Amino acid sequence: MLKINDDLMQTLLVAIETEQRQAVARIDGPGCSHLHYMLAYHLGWEGEGAGPEACGKRIRPVLVLLTCAAAGGAWQAALPAAAAVELVHNFSLIHDDIEDNSPTRRGRPTLWKLWGVPQAINSGDALFTLAHLELGRLRETRPAEVTLQAAELFEQACLQLTQGQYLDLAYEARTDLFLDDYWPMIRGKTAALLAAGTELGSLIAGVQEERRSAFRRFGEHLGLAFQTQDDLLGIWGDAALIGKSTASDLLTGKKSLPVLYGLGQRGKFAQRWYQGNIQPEEIESLAAQLEAEGGRDYTRQAAENETEQASQALEEAQPRGEAGEALTALAHQLLHRQA
Amino acid sequence: MLKINDDLMQTLLVAIETEQRQAVARIDGPGCSHLHYMLAYHLGWEGEGAGPEACGKRIRPVLVLLTCAAAGGAWQAALPAAAAVELVHNFSLIHDDIEDNSPTRRGRPTLWKLWGVPQAINSGDALFTLAHLELGRLRETRPAEVTLQAAELFEQACLQLTQGQYLDLAYEARTDLFLDDYWPMIRGKTAALLAAGTELGSLIAGVQEERRSAFRRFGEHLGLAFQTQDDLLGIWGDAALIGKSTASDLLTGKKSLPVLYGLGQRGKFAQRWYQGNIQPEEIESLAAQLEAEGGRDYTRQAAENETEQASQALEEAQPRGEAGEALTALAHQLLHRQA
Repeated sequence: MLKINDDLMQTLLVAIETEQRQAVARIDGPGCSHLHYMLAYHLGWEGEGAGPEACGKRIRPVLVLLTCAAAGGAWQAALPAAAAVELVHNFSLIHDDIEDNSPTRRGRPTLWKLWGVPQAINSGDALFTLAHLELGRLRETRPAEVTLQAAELFEQACLQLTQGQYLDLAYEARTDLFLDDYWPMIRGKTAALLAAGTELGSLIAGVQEERRSAFRRFGEHLGLAFQTQDDLLGIWGDAALIGKSTASDLLTGKKSLPVLYGLGQRGKFAQRWYQGNIQPEEIESLAAQLEAEGGRDYTRQAAENETEQASQALEEAQPRGEAGEALTALAHQLLHRQA
Repeated sequence: MLKINDDLMQTLLVAIETEQRQAVARIDGPGCSHLHYMLAYHLGWEGEGAGPEACGKRIRPVLVLLTCAAAGGAWQAALPAAAAVELVHNFSLIHDDIEDNSPTRRGRPTLWKLWGVPQAINSGDALFTLAHLELGRLRETRPAEVTLQAAELFEQACLQLTQGQYLDLAYEARTDLFLDDYWPMIRGKTAALLAAGTELGSLIAGVQEERRSAFRRFGEHLGLAFQTQDDLLGIWGDAALIGKSTASDLLTGKKSLPVLYGLGQRGKFAQRWYQGNIQPEEIESLAAQLEAEGGRDYTRQAAENETEQASQALEEAQPRGEAGEALTALAHQLLHRQA
């Protein structure tokens, strides 16, 4: 999926999966093998449809490892942090899928759909706990103080994640949302974990605060750029517009950046949106209307702005060597994708 | 509720609540005041019915503080651990209430009942995260190594908690359960957090491993004794038997120790149990049947056995001073309650 140096990427993905499997193997209580199985299913290792596609893109853990290496450390030292970040991401997906009533994830039935809401909630809680235990493994190779610093910033990211998710859920019932409501939600839901990931990578590499802050800002703006780009594709991407219009954010009612911009214009787009019950056959003309009112340009501008800030922060962070190049390539690729 | 030295108890409860409030105040993201409110509601501080009754008994955090003092430390140093343990307990209650479909808790509507399952799941996740952040405050007064040790044993308890909850949920659908299935579930659901609490208290006090292990065993057996006593009261307590028979575990179908014992006897009790759909008017005779088959004696014996082991472990732990006496009194009171 990601096309930076294939050998390096393959090495990192294998190491991440090995680390994650060790973390999940901590579920070993008597009679608990099915709990282990449910987590292995969610992570794409077991059950129907298991395999690379079911594992997700694993952008977050790769970013952690590349950041550590680009900051001058050995990426191996960052494996507990990389695995922990990916496990937290996956924990949040298990709970999000329940909260959003989503029947599928990565082309397979979701955990709650297969084994019910109660077991899915509890499986998410178990995975969240495993992420914490995994992060604690940092102390095997890092000083205790560094491990505690890592834990603190990891927890802060988790807290922002739940606050972002709170806003997302709260927004569903609101009709008075505008542009200002967008950023706090996205900072929590998308940017916080990426920012924590790049800061963790550089913290583990042992760089000083100023450079670490630059790596952190790189992660944060990368997350924001990624999300705004995602919002663009969600309305004007091929899949949304012509492929299968059910993929359009206009149909799912998602409060994405272009939509919030459009609502603020109080024009024809907003008028139609507030009436609700948008049909698949309207998607193309409604997307055109939103574009005419400036929603597409505004979002593209925001994505470019975030991308520019991400690039600038990465430059300030002075990434080194092969990993530095890979980090630049990875960012470029994420931000110029068309699907 | 707990009647050990009133002044000391009052002091501890106030300190615990202050600490918990500081922890929950970390929810301060823009637009997130209602998330804070939901947690404050669940913790008994806000909303209709707020007050001491709605806060729960707070046995766990009191145990942490008393253990620390009885082990020779200053209880104030253990406040982050006490608050963290109580926050985790409350996080688990939020999720348990969803999983068990419980409409009320401590005489008030549950979080999911008031604000829906999605927000309740996410509020629980936020509280779980706050517990971790709170535990991290130990590093303000303890060496980094001790804080990391505390975090590790705290996480292990959380993992056991989710494994115990997994078993409890899995047991609902099973009809082939016997005595052996009881202990792993209860160790996870009830004993793990109490064991971690007393170990944390003594770790923070700085006692050596052997005494710490005795404090840990005290907490664990206290938890098991407490639960088996609870199981007895759930069938033969006043509320269950004559007060309001809807409170009987025989009606809710709970897989408690006397029930599992009775099923193993394969007698008249088991026969009726497997038929299902037990009615309130049958409760008294069914309880008598289970008693005749030995279920009450067996459970009382188990409770006494655990109580004995808890007392013995406490003695080995050599608790000191006023806190030591309070610990003994608290244990005695928990284990000889009639409701």
